[in-house]
Amino acid sequence: MSRYVKNQIDKLDAYTPGEQPRDRSYIKLNTNESPFAPSDRVVEAIDDSSVQSLRLYCDPTCKALKDKIAQVYDTKSTNVFVGNGSDEILNFIFMAYGERGVAYADITYGFYSVFASLYGLKSRVIPLKEDFSLDSERFCGINQLIVIASPNAPTGIEISVVELEKILSTNSDSVVVVDHAYVDFGGTDVKYLTQMYKNLICVYTFSKSRSMAGARLGFAIADEELILDLEKIKYSTNPYNVNTLTQIAGLNALEDDEYYKSNAEIIKKNREYTTVELEKLGFEVLPSQANFVFAKSKDISGKDLYLKLKENGILIRHFDKDRIAEYIRITIGSIQEMQIFVSKVKNILGELQ
Amino acid sequence: MSRYVKNQIDKLDAYTPGEQPRDRSYIKLNTNESPFAPSDRVVEAIDDSSVQSLRLYCDPTCKALKDKIAQVYDTKSTNVFVGNGSDEILNFIFMAYGERGVAYADITYGFYSVFASLYGLKSRVIPLKEDFSLDSERFCGINQLIVIASPNAPTGIEISVVELEKILSTNSDSVVVVDHAYVDFGGTDVKYLTQMYKNLICVYTFSKSRSMAGARLGFAIADEELILDLEKIKYSTNPYNVNTLTQIAGLNALEDDEYYKSNAEIIKKNREYTTVELEKLGFEVLPSQANFVFAKSKDISGKDLYLKLKENGILIRHFDKDRIAEYIRITIGSIQEMQIFVSKVKNILGELQ
Repeated sequence: MSRYVKNQIDKLDAYTPGEQPRDRSYIKLNTNESPFAPSDRVVEAIDDSSVQSLRLYCDPTCKALKDKIAQVYDTKSTNVFVGNGSDEILNFIFMAYGERGVAYADITYGFYSVFASLYGLKSRVIPLKEDFSLDSERFCGINQLIVIASPNAPTGIEISVVELEKILSTNSDSVVVVDHAYVDFGGTDVKYLTQMYKNLICVYTFSKSRSMAGARLGFAIADEELILDLEKIKYSTNPYNVNTLTQIAGLNALEDDEYYKSNAEIIKKNREYTTVELEKLGFEVLPSQANFVFAKSKDISGKDLYLKLKENGILIRHFDKDRIAEYIRITIGSIQEMQIFVSKVKNILGELQ
Repeated sequence: MSRYVKNQIDKLDAYTPGEQPRDRSYIKLNTNESPFAPSDRVVEAIDDSSVQSLRLYCDPTCKALKDKIAQVYDTKSTNVFVGNGSDEILNFIFMAYGERGVAYADITYGFYSVFASLYGLKSRVIPLKEDFSLDSERFCGINQLIVIASPNAPTGIEISVVELEKILSTNSDSVVVVDHAYVDFGGTDVKYLTQMYKNLICVYTFSKSRSMAGARLGFAIADEELILDLEKIKYSTNPYNVNTLTQIAGLNALEDDEYYKSNAEIIKKNREYTTVELEKLGFEVLPSQANFVFAKSKDISGKDLYLKLKENGILIRHFDKDRIAEYIRITIGSIQEMQIFVSKVKNILGELQ
């Protein structure tokens, strides 16, 4: 860091994304990407003339894309905000609503605490219960910004609608964010609650179920007034935040929703396969509604298993945090990838005998 | 705005981008875009397989792109930062270095004051001299963040190296930003000064001379320590800020640098043509080093001329600000576009007789 930089930024611990090594080719089960390519419709839509149109600015209002999201998600365009990945949207939310502090779980998406430090917000870190479910009582009536990933990462466990409504109704003076990045793999989409609760923002991404992690596209659904807040921050930081080709890709992905739904069903089957196989090998596997499972072995530490698998050409994710150090998070890929994964784990455990 | 939002954001005046109307087709001379498409090399590089690769996250380190920028700009990759448009980079700079306040000209890129308000920074707004050149003496020894567009927008006038070095050397405890968005149309690139002055950041965009406004790509060149500051903010807000296709487009644009250089030469010729023709019509035209000219007529107000041209299917930019209300800013397009523009202006002035 330079001597010119603001003290708060100097002291900050930035987010560490999952590794993207280029030294060799791995079976990549570490960053919750999709094993499926974007739909053919997306591939066809990004043609020569769309690339040539890059000489012009993209539509800063993202009108066509917003209209399409509204149609598919059964809401109005004025209830939709579009961002350069859902991370950008979360960033704007922390800027806008964190003044009285922010509450989130101890085990959740690691970026929440980074945003909090970046803006100097007071964090209330509420431990998950013993079974890794959200301790929702402790989020009630606190009137701070509340951020809940549902399904949660890296556990895959979601919050029940009853519990969420308790949090929403007892925090009517503050914003509650439901991060729905992983909702399409069997989770409960609570977007309909945005009509009842003016303080709810649901945040979505095209990076997981829609196979577009590299395109950077996220969106939010909320009451129109909250959307206007986010628009104002966008027009005060980066009005052309979503580039032309990503707008085209997003629009065309939504035109082919059945393709992605059927891919999500395959992921759910592969998740079931992986869970059963890991349990046969003596793993404890948390019940996941996401495109990953979180599991621990009684025979090998999370770190050692991560390292052994990496040696064997498979990347998974391990977190150093004490409470979950024994666990590994495995992205659900194609059935072939999961079969190789299971067989490598078998070998590794066999060598320990 | 909602009742939940931070007061500072509620009060903020967001940036207003140039209009992008979709009601009819205009000759667009209002947002300084290029009349030339991206090079064929860019069009070819964004092929089916690059779109299919969107299922994976983009390279957060932007390694290949940074290496190429370093090669073309004769610097090291560790001196390069890449952003989702130069606006994102400016945003990060204001976050990082504005604590003691920020100084910029009264007539310059309108976003600087927005960033300052967003982060609650004290602004020192220094009026340009009578001839619209920078009053560089008043920037000396102030030890605040200093932001200078060179060539400046919307005037097209650049700062001399001698004056810039005075500002750099008398503000050694603060960061000085040279916004080089328009430097490729005859301006003086001062990137070599980053080797002498550890407090200098030069900011560039692919939106103007490189015909990629819709791709969102900007970069900065500076001392390695400043680059590390910006990287930390990126990893604390949006690690995957530049999407896969934009990284590919940027890399391939740089492989075809001669194409863009020759386009810039055409723009300079068309600028000369436009300047001469406007002067013949009695306009005062500021000497521009950018892909636009800033001009005023003695016969018609800036606002009226803007409105009349819009009726005639030509969009230019007019700013309401008192000091420049009589001026219009005209982006330099193709020679055909400029000929139509000149002939429409002639007609409009003729009707006033």
